[in-house]
Amino acid sequence: MALTSANAELTPAGNLGPATALVCRECGSRRDLGPFYACEECFGPLEIAYDFGGITRADIEAGPRNIWRYRGLLPVPSNVAETPNTEPGLTRLVRADNLAESLGLQRLWVKDDSGNPTHSFKDRVVAVALAAARELGFKVLACPSTGNLANAVAAAAARAGIRSAVFVPSDLESQKIITTAVYGGTFVTVDGNYDDVNRLASEIAGEQEDWAFVNVNVRPYYAEGSKTLGYEIAEQLGWRLPDQIVVPVASGSQLTKIDKAFQELIKLGLVEDRPYRVFGAQATGCDPVSAAFKAGHDAVRPVKPDTIAKSLAIGNPADGPYVLDVARRTGGAVEDVSDEQVVEGIRLLARTEGIFGETAGGVTVATLRKLVEDGRLDPSAETVIINSGDGLKTLDAVAPVVAPSANIAPSLDAFRAAGLA
Amino acid sequence: MALTSANAELTPAGNLGPATALVCRECGSRRDLGPFYACEECFGPLEIAYDFGGITRADIEAGPRNIWRYRGLLPVPSNVAETPNTEPGLTRLVRADNLAESLGLQRLWVKDDSGNPTHSFKDRVVAVALAAARELGFKVLACPSTGNLANAVAAAAARAGIRSAVFVPSDLESQKIITTAVYGGTFVTVDGNYDDVNRLASEIAGEQEDWAFVNVNVRPYYAEGSKTLGYEIAEQLGWRLPDQIVVPVASGSQLTKIDKAFQELIKLGLVEDRPYRVFGAQATGCDPVSAAFKAGHDAVRPVKPDTIAKSLAIGNPADGPYVLDVARRTGGAVEDVSDEQVVEGIRLLARTEGIFGETAGGVTVATLRKLVEDGRLDPSAETVIINSGDGLKTLDAVAPVVAPSANIAPSLDAFRAAGLA
Repeated sequence: MALTSANAELTPAGNLGPATALVCRECGSRRDLGPFYACEECFGPLEIAYDFGGITRADIEAGPRNIWRYRGLLPVPSNVAETPNTEPGLTRLVRADNLAESLGLQRLWVKDDSGNPTHSFKDRVVAVALAAARELGFKVLACPSTGNLANAVAAAAARAGIRSAVFVPSDLESQKIITTAVYGGTFVTVDGNYDDVNRLASEIAGEQEDWAFVNVNVRPYYAEGSKTLGYEIAEQLGWRLPDQIVVPVASGSQLTKIDKAFQELIKLGLVEDRPYRVFGAQATGCDPVSAAFKAGHDAVRPVKPDTIAKSLAIGNPADGPYVLDVARRTGGAVEDVSDEQVVEGIRLLARTEGIFGETAGGVTVATLRKLVEDGRLDPSAETVIINSGDGLKTLDAVAPVVAPSANIAPSLDAFRAAGLA
Repeated sequence: MALTSANAELTPAGNLGPATALVCRECGSRRDLGPFYACEECFGPLEIAYDFGGITRADIEAGPRNIWRYRGLLPVPSNVAETPNTEPGLTRLVRADNLAESLGLQRLWVKDDSGNPTHSFKDRVVAVALAAARELGFKVLACPSTGNLANAVAAAAARAGIRSAVFVPSDLESQKIITTAVYGGTFVTVDGNYDDVNRLASEIAGEQEDWAFVNVNVRPYYAEGSKTLGYEIAEQLGWRLPDQIVVPVASGSQLTKIDKAFQELIKLGLVEDRPYRVFGAQATGCDPVSAAFKAGHDAVRPVKPDTIAKSLAIGNPADGPYVLDVARRTGGAVEDVSDEQVVEGIRLLARTEGIFGETAGGVTVATLRKLVEDGRLDPSAETVIINSGDGLKTLDAVAPVVAPSANIAPSLDAFRAAGLA
């Protein structure tokens, strides 16, 4: 296994803003910034360390209306907004009184990340990966993917005027093929499942020295993009942390980075230091982190995914153990819901708030409901949930269960007879 | 034909902000605000008249980050933002240097309205229609539609906690059925074409006294929502009008309302009074306005639509003559492009800027290209184009022409052999 890219010669890194080093999340050893993603000592995952200096609310509020307002908290150059990019972020934080009422909650918000340029939170992480990859000297933006990430990488590379190289399983639904192929770039279908594609991507990263696989060899930078979800939630609440947050868990990175963002805001004095609880949401058909949480384990046993929530179907989640840490440290939990509940969660969010989320959103809403019903989530405490993607990309999930109310002839008589008034 | 709703008893109107009266666009006769849409004197279309008082840039900039920052310029109450709504607008204005370069333009922007909650500009007009309908005493939000409008009405009503009633042709693509049905509400498929559905909607509006068909009996209010596109473009350019703008033409309302917005901003002193040129874009398969423009006619002869740009396929566009007026008055033009050019327009926008527009966006990009090539659009002048919807909703248009670069076995050898590096 390649622990670093072939392109170690690209270091020293360019301008990565406040980032100062890479630190192993397991053994804590440090190394200089560069195109590295695994610890040389213990093979643990590397994470970015920073020196933020002083950052004020006013600094942030004066910034662009997208994730780059938080550029001082990300591994990107300070002029990052000047380079063409998809400008993701600052998606709506929607006060969800109808959904709250239907679940018996008092104060609920939906962070609706379907408003991003390619309609999922992946635009955030890809934008940060692209900015860092450019500084690290990479020339091609690449990824293995099953859908959302492929869209985001192909779009971001097109906008930036650089080459993309996207690898997907060849049995991917034709609509996901179209939505990536339309952006141009190199787009390869691979005869195998996602694990096969992922392994091939690692192998290619090991020999194509100027290819940045966003979720492989520049993963430490990429993952930081999810912090912007946490920053935005706090800023949009008026520089305040919610009491409770429910986050979908695929690799687990999004959840751990939201927690990291909250911690950073507290340390910087940008929000009050008060307790918050973080809950993880999985589909029962791919529930390795939930299972470990319930069993009281520290390790996560891989599973073979079988769920309609394909964007969460990572059977061996890299950040699973860190999700367990965050949930336990904050007094939260990790829970899972059936595919039927996922579909009902999608419908509930659509019917109550007019937000059509993808299956991952359905997982989150259904988990929220379960946690409230079980009494593990405080119904009187302010709660935020994440809708990480768009229902337009997972129509198959709801197709069997939604239908028109009636079909009529084009006449007033037919309308009256149908009893629709 | 019913010239007014059955519910004239609902007047006098509630709080409609700066709106003062309804004025006939043909004969100029005025009447009080209310649920009316056609002139009692001449059957001409009614339009909102206002008394804006003084509005400053600072007033607007202090408002919410959505269309309600312009509430002082719309027929809605001043507290409109406090009532649950989908909060559309303030979509990205994207500097499109790659697309500009490929077309030989110097300064080009794309107003990307696919970023709205249900991913088309229809969220704007529906939000205004809903706010006005509530003040006018209506209880149900309704529409005839072939797609985008159905999504927007069903979502907005769900979010507002009121009933929706959406009517569509029964041969609509299943994906458009799903994306409306998921929001709940009354959703009726009608055995007939869009003209049949539209006629039925008018008949129902004539007898269901508390149903607001957004594009029928509250159309004067609804149509004003498109003004927000013009306001946003000016504000996002730094309170400045572009030199040239290219707008897709279906009913023609969007184009005329953008012009109306620019005129209002000039009169209010919010932007400098300088010349701008407005261009309309149609598909050749539904080109009644373009044909009239080219023939030098004032009237628009209806056509039977036959184009892949279904969201623009209105054969008898209500605002067609007004589009001709605007194009001629400003020194613009109306042009049309073939379905092949539409598809190439979609692909060009995606490949150059990472924006996947719907067919209407393809029409606009292709028309822009044609106008530049013909020398009718000044390549050195600042130009804005509208992308009014999302490619995810019109995948069929590009499906035949986009495809992966290669299909390989999951091995490095296969990767190398494919010559992809």
